[in-house]
Amino acid sequence: MSEFINNNNARIESLLQLCRNLIQGALNTELIQQHQDAIDHLTPNDIVQVVHRLVEDNIPMKDLKSGINKFLNICFKTIRSQAKIEVKPNHFLGVLMAENRELEKRLAAMKPIAKSINLIKEESDLRKELRILKSKIEDLGAFEKHYSRKENIFFPYFEREFPEFKCLGVMWSIHDDIRKTQKILLDSLEAKKVDVKEINHMLGDLFFSMYAIIFREEYLLFPVAINAVSAELWEEMNHQSDELGYSYIPKPVYSAKNASNRKKAFSFEGDNLDPQQLGDTLLNFDTGLMTLDQAMILLNHLPVDITMIDENDRVRFFSKPKDRFFTRSKAIIGRSVQNCHPPESVHVVEDLLKAFRNCEKDSESFWIQMKGRFILIQYFALRDEAGAYKGCIEVSQDVTEIRELKGEKRLMD
Amino acid sequence: MSEFINNNNARIESLLQLCRNLIQGALNTELIQQHQDAIDHLTPNDIVQVVHRLVEDNIPMKDLKSGINKFLNICFKTIRSQAKIEVKPNHFLGVLMAENRELEKRLAAMKPIAKSINLIKEESDLRKELRILKSKIEDLGAFEKHYSRKENIFFPYFEREFPEFKCLGVMWSIHDDIRKTQKILLDSLEAKKVDVKEINHMLGDLFFSMYAIIFREEYLLFPVAINAVSAELWEEMNHQSDELGYSYIPKPVYSAKNASNRKKAFSFEGDNLDPQQLGDTLLNFDTGLMTLDQAMILLNHLPVDITMIDENDRVRFFSKPKDRFFTRSKAIIGRSVQNCHPPESVHVVEDLLKAFRNCEKDSESFWIQMKGRFILIQYFALRDEAGAYKGCIEVSQDVTEIRELKGEKRLMD
Repeated sequence: MSEFINNNNARIESLLQLCRNLIQGALNTELIQQHQDAIDHLTPNDIVQVVHRLVEDNIPMKDLKSGINKFLNICFKTIRSQAKIEVKPNHFLGVLMAENRELEKRLAAMKPIAKSINLIKEESDLRKELRILKSKIEDLGAFEKHYSRKENIFFPYFEREFPEFKCLGVMWSIHDDIRKTQKILLDSLEAKKVDVKEINHMLGDLFFSMYAIIFREEYLLFPVAINAVSAELWEEMNHQSDELGYSYIPKPVYSAKNASNRKKAFSFEGDNLDPQQLGDTLLNFDTGLMTLDQAMILLNHLPVDITMIDENDRVRFFSKPKDRFFTRSKAIIGRSVQNCHPPESVHVVEDLLKAFRNCEKDSESFWIQMKGRFILIQYFALRDEAGAYKGCIEVSQDVTEIRELKGEKRLMD
Repeated sequence: MSEFINNNNARIESLLQLCRNLIQGALNTELIQQHQDAIDHLTPNDIVQVVHRLVEDNIPMKDLKSGINKFLNICFKTIRSQAKIEVKPNHFLGVLMAENRELEKRLAAMKPIAKSINLIKEESDLRKELRILKSKIEDLGAFEKHYSRKENIFFPYFEREFPEFKCLGVMWSIHDDIRKTQKILLDSLEAKKVDVKEINHMLGDLFFSMYAIIFREEYLLFPVAINAVSAELWEEMNHQSDELGYSYIPKPVYSAKNASNRKKAFSFEGDNLDPQQLGDTLLNFDTGLMTLDQAMILLNHLPVDITMIDENDRVRFFSKPKDRFFTRSKAIIGRSVQNCHPPESVHVVEDLLKAFRNCEKDSESFWIQMKGRFILIQYFALRDEAGAYKGCIEVSQDVTEIRELKGEKRLMD
């Protein structure tokens, strides 16, 4: 029997070496044969570990993703022979898998259309077919909620429970690829001159990435996660899910919330007082006296969305206004802000925090235009009265209407 | 001896009747003779009481002010014969009086200029003189800090300590008249065609109002206040003054802050925890865990200025960002929001709060242009999860730069 069957470390090292070679461009029978034993005996955990190590190598994300594609292609048969997890339909992962089944139906239904556009000669027939294609791609956009629940709820929990979690960054990057490709495809389909070849090419990329995510979820990530995360945490994740919504499936029915679990999601040590315990006790804010309840209501009625991190870069708080523009879920409380961003943009976050720490900057603003809205996203360094760095806040605001105000409207005219 | 010497109530009733007649347009020797005894024996307290009662009559402010002018004119000699208060130069009222002395010098120096512009025939000489006049009026604008310390610090304390405080509304209205007249005067002096007669008329109004305020402060309001407000509260007011600044005089030297008095300014009943007592205790904001210190730093670093009132219309809290646009001082904590506005605009506030209470509105926006800045002032009803009214917040924001943003600036380009 192979030395690799019961030697996880040796197997992981072998697979890691294989991957590093693949990333450097090597791909030949000899290389694969060298690592065949490890490939034959690999487990989902091995792959999660290997990708974690590769991310820590700081390989450019593009090369990393392409290397991993080759690697998983080589290992496809072994992986495919593993059992999927078995969970109840209303388990957090069961819900994600039910969405995958729906997505597969939609992807399958699109394939004939993708093929047919190559064959249609008549311009008006082509236009008609492209309109159908466009509506199908728009329908794929609804799968965003699946990705969003993963990124905002599942990733933070997995990170906390599983130290070698960095494969999540690669997955996040593929989610972002999918989003980008969908957007470019829709733009291309609306263009005056349609490049069918280009559209076919992008459709190929889109299909590849969306199928890849389903495969990696169900054969790799979920089997590892189901053992790493406790039953009560899966419950907690469920109770944060409704707010973000579901893709293609009706709202699942979950078991009733267990009040005693309420605070599990938060991971700060120390005494902890909630509004029930404090009741009418007034908190002295120096320029005012509010109960904790009042302070919460105030924060959640502001016309800006707030997320706060402390001086250790960990998320402390986010506000929960009625129409939050950027999704936040309780799972991020206590999370390192570095993990809250796709790997490609982490360096921007790091640079900004460094400038805040060094007092080179006190604030930084970004603005984007999305779905017809003008969104301002500002970051402010927090400093105490002595000037010590105390963290930072992200403040985002839909300023579309503010930019359109004319003249004056006074209290007294 | 007159029945009025020791009968405050009878005297006040007599003076009140006189005033009501004056407001209705009566003014003749007989009327004055009827009330001469009361006039001869009046005290500052009587007048404060009478004006309080008149304000409660809901007489239109314009008629009320003009009636009070006539009344004080009739009583001038008696009032003038009263002793002014004697306080140390660094007493809150002593500082206000020192500013009055400086203001008197400036007003006196302006009189010859005001006269001379009537006599100058040569256009270029007139222009020169008007430029001097303009700079003098701009200099009078510096007296704003005197009015601001009264409105934001003194008025709230006096209100709380003296039940018949409503004369303050009349005084506030005259402050506003002064502000308006100064603004119109400056605009007129910048106009292409200068109407000297009109300018003289407005200067007359301005002088009258500014002298009237000095007189009413020193002969009426301050003598009543000095007996109504305790020594330690005057100290507290001093310690809130530096932030608002002084007019024409150097920053006074106050005695050291008495830490045990710190919370006197706040007038909410109940247990009270401050950041020192809470230390590292985490407050559970449902979507986050922060210490009270962190929550305070967060609120004070937001790019908006917040003032919050509770469901009983009392000010609970205001935020204290570095560059607050609208002055707030701790003295307003616990104050009725109705008292935080000049009488003329209270009905707008009342109407808005009514609409919030009735759920007719959830928010209301105003915007003004001031000193080259575009200021947005928004009001939001606060409601708990069950929808019950919990007060409202005022959120103001300098949106000048936001309105000028172009294109996009993304985290990742």
